[in-house]
Amino acid sequence: MSSRIQHAGLRAKVMSAQEAAAFIRPGTTVGMSGFTGSGYPKAVPLALAERISAAHARGEDFRIDLHTGASTSSEMDGALAESGGVALRTPFQSDPTMRAKINAGEVEYIDTHLSHLAQTVWNGFYGPMHTAVVEVSAIREDGTLVPSSSVGNNKSWLDLADEVILEVNSWQSEELEGLHDVYYGTALPPHRQPVMITDPADRIGQPYFECDPAKVVAVVETHAPDRNSPFKPADEDSIAIAQHLVEFFEHEVAAGRYDERLLPLQSGVGNIANAVMAELVKSRFRGLTAFTEVVQDGMLDALDSGTLSMASATAFSLSTEAAERFNANVAQYKDKLILRTQEISNHPELVRRLGILAMNGMLEADLYGNVNSTHLMGTKMMNGLGGSGDFARNAFTSFFLTPSAAKGGDISCIVPMVSHVDHTEHDVHVLVTEQGLADLRGLSPKQRARKIIAKCAHPDYRDQLQDYSDRALKESSGLHTPHLLGEALSWHQRYLDTGSMKQA
Amino acid sequence: MSSRIQHAGLRAKVMSAQEAAAFIRPGTTVGMSGFTGSGYPKAVPLALAERISAAHARGEDFRIDLHTGASTSSEMDGALAESGGVALRTPFQSDPTMRAKINAGEVEYIDTHLSHLAQTVWNGFYGPMHTAVVEVSAIREDGTLVPSSSVGNNKSWLDLADEVILEVNSWQSEELEGLHDVYYGTALPPHRQPVMITDPADRIGQPYFECDPAKVVAVVETHAPDRNSPFKPADEDSIAIAQHLVEFFEHEVAAGRYDERLLPLQSGVGNIANAVMAELVKSRFRGLTAFTEVVQDGMLDALDSGTLSMASATAFSLSTEAAERFNANVAQYKDKLILRTQEISNHPELVRRLGILAMNGMLEADLYGNVNSTHLMGTKMMNGLGGSGDFARNAFTSFFLTPSAAKGGDISCIVPMVSHVDHTEHDVHVLVTEQGLADLRGLSPKQRARKIIAKCAHPDYRDQLQDYSDRALKESSGLHTPHLLGEALSWHQRYLDTGSMKQA
Repeated sequence: MSSRIQHAGLRAKVMSAQEAAAFIRPGTTVGMSGFTGSGYPKAVPLALAERISAAHARGEDFRIDLHTGASTSSEMDGALAESGGVALRTPFQSDPTMRAKINAGEVEYIDTHLSHLAQTVWNGFYGPMHTAVVEVSAIREDGTLVPSSSVGNNKSWLDLADEVILEVNSWQSEELEGLHDVYYGTALPPHRQPVMITDPADRIGQPYFECDPAKVVAVVETHAPDRNSPFKPADEDSIAIAQHLVEFFEHEVAAGRYDERLLPLQSGVGNIANAVMAELVKSRFRGLTAFTEVVQDGMLDALDSGTLSMASATAFSLSTEAAERFNANVAQYKDKLILRTQEISNHPELVRRLGILAMNGMLEADLYGNVNSTHLMGTKMMNGLGGSGDFARNAFTSFFLTPSAAKGGDISCIVPMVSHVDHTEHDVHVLVTEQGLADLRGLSPKQRARKIIAKCAHPDYRDQLQDYSDRALKESSGLHTPHLLGEALSWHQRYLDTGSMKQA
Repeated sequence: MSSRIQHAGLRAKVMSAQEAAAFIRPGTTVGMSGFTGSGYPKAVPLALAERISAAHARGEDFRIDLHTGASTSSEMDGALAESGGVALRTPFQSDPTMRAKINAGEVEYIDTHLSHLAQTVWNGFYGPMHTAVVEVSAIREDGTLVPSSSVGNNKSWLDLADEVILEVNSWQSEELEGLHDVYYGTALPPHRQPVMITDPADRIGQPYFECDPAKVVAVVETHAPDRNSPFKPADEDSIAIAQHLVEFFEHEVAAGRYDERLLPLQSGVGNIANAVMAELVKSRFRGLTAFTEVVQDGMLDALDSGTLSMASATAFSLSTEAAERFNANVAQYKDKLILRTQEISNHPELVRRLGILAMNGMLEADLYGNVNSTHLMGTKMMNGLGGSGDFARNAFTSFFLTPSAAKGGDISCIVPMVSHVDHTEHDVHVLVTEQGLADLRGLSPKQRARKIIAKCAHPDYRDQLQDYSDRALKESSGLHTPHLLGEALSWHQRYLDTGSMKQA
């Protein structure tokens, strides 16, 4: 048995994933660990999926409500979706099978601000939580738990669940111990107190989860890697977007609005976020900080180069190569990295106070700066809102980033009216595409439209957007936010009908 | 000269409104006081409007950029809009003439979260502020200023402006002194500190504005009433909405999610908000608190009855009768009322921490719980977002309220897709119409649609909504948020074409 299970009582509860999964009953609510492909349970969800499939084969109903931190991996979301065992999923996912089931109407999905889920579950909106399944990197002698590569909502699930299943993953570095900051000061109102962080490097909690050993019904040993997306070298568009951003930072420093160390950076998941870090590493900026959700490869590089002096997040989201590099050198990152619960990593109080520069991807923006982060053609869920709303609403500067076109040019990411709104015009300060950067601060809707067409639209769609805008200015019933209602969503309909937003 | 001007240097600067208005130059940015029809300058804007009209008559260009706290009155927004002297207006308005100019495309308007404007002006997004015109109720011997019936953004305008014009309004009660809490601890990041309020009754500032007397170029004496809307007895729909809400509060107390004193209430402006207070007065609830923007007539009644033990806001918004009643009895309200700067009254940090029950009006909601608070038929600005976003995003429970139909039944306030989004599905917990209350917490989009049709839609539109929903479930390209893009905005277009959303 692994030396990582130091608590005698919990050593006695070690069993197979199949035995552990048997504790999970049909119709219950389960909170699992996992935030991106990091720190999710590796064995029990697979065993549970088998158990569900077997029940379905016998003609029995077996579905659960599933809460996590954010997305996980095919071993968890994929397997459980494939089994048909998920009735409800929150707050975020990015798995192809789960996505297909959601868009076929087979899984109810509640796309939720990542900072909000824990408090709503605490508040009972989703009923009681029956089981928590949480990966940890070790169980200490006193029964406290060393978190693994993501913290997410694990503290809340461990506190709330009637029964707890722990996976102890010996693949995770033992040296993770001490890196986490688990804050036990949250409460429901009227008992909430200020969250006393004034710098991304502040620690206000403890490095371990508390968990009553009496609630633990099973301990499962695993030795399995996290599975995040492979690192892809930045493409031309991502580099161009990143360059526009770094140029803008320089511009803001020159204008006296940011100081030389900028303000704490929040950077979403994906290639563009990695490209932004890579451009910052090439820039003159040094000693920056990040107050963000995930640490990607690019952020590790930025820590190595001194571009970043430290990063606060709730999870790693590293490629296999970067995870190996990190695991081999945890000690050198330990004073530069903090993983917090996602309530704190994404807390609106802290986002406002620290003055975050929030950089998030999007699917499309419209002429007036409304942003759709989630719905393809207004109806199909892509992944979810994630933390973008937590950061954008309260950020000091809220950036949204996308290539100007998608699907080989058949989709314009700048449209007359977005087909779904996740971020309103009020929360969108700067739009960036490979074409350029539109600073929308201090602009009225019509002024925004002119700038977005000029700076961000793909050249193939610029005339078509200008034509819509010109006609809307003449024919719209109101001229505050001019629109032709019969035509506003016609680009999306045309794409559905013809496979392209381009006019014939 | 009024005994209210105790500072010798400032007594020497008393002059007429016309002389004062002459300090305001074309092309400049002016910050004025005012939040609803309270505490706005009564004389200088009128004199400025005359000065602008005279300049225009001479063929000269004369326009200013105008920032306030929120809406004001016809004496200010109305007169300045009429003069054609406003190039840009932020962050909120509700004046018919100003609205007409905005919707004719003659005034650029930036509809802004009320808690955000001060920080964006501080940050220079709108350029320098040349002049502040601020109503106060007295000038003290040391040059500090006693605020009047609204605080709004006055602290920021006084700090930021190159030149200050003060109006000392002797109509305002002298006993207002001591009621205000002006917080001087705000800063731009990275220098922000926690805002140490954990109860609506906490005071963290001082009762006076600071203002360098050297910056004051004019002091104008006035004796003029605030002008808020007359109080209207609650109509049937408002009473029904209020009753649904109070019943829901009882339900939440029974479920153990609110305690007997509920949580601090935020309540928008208007008849529905007054009706909610009236129903609470009739209920068994006592000792509640409010952490809100404005104190309306209904809130005064609730303080009188002990339903509310105290209220924190940034402004009064009282009918003439209630204002007279308040002015005659200020002493008895003084320990129960606090007026703060709008940065603090609407601060996301405090809204989240205190766990506000946020109740805001809206124009329309859609099947999935997205809310339009601002745009008639998607293009015409009604008033603005106001503080609804400050509260809804971070509220413990976010309620949106409206009658189910408008314009004698020709507009359904529940539509397939809203024509503009101010509050996304993520930030809308409960919808209430006179028909009923839809608790959307913990529901997926399709579940929300069923509940909204059943509970909130007007009976005249229920079948039409169900028909859209049924067909969307069959024909939508994605089934997460089913829509027929070609039809989603057709109700609004039909209203524009035929005068009714009803199908022929």
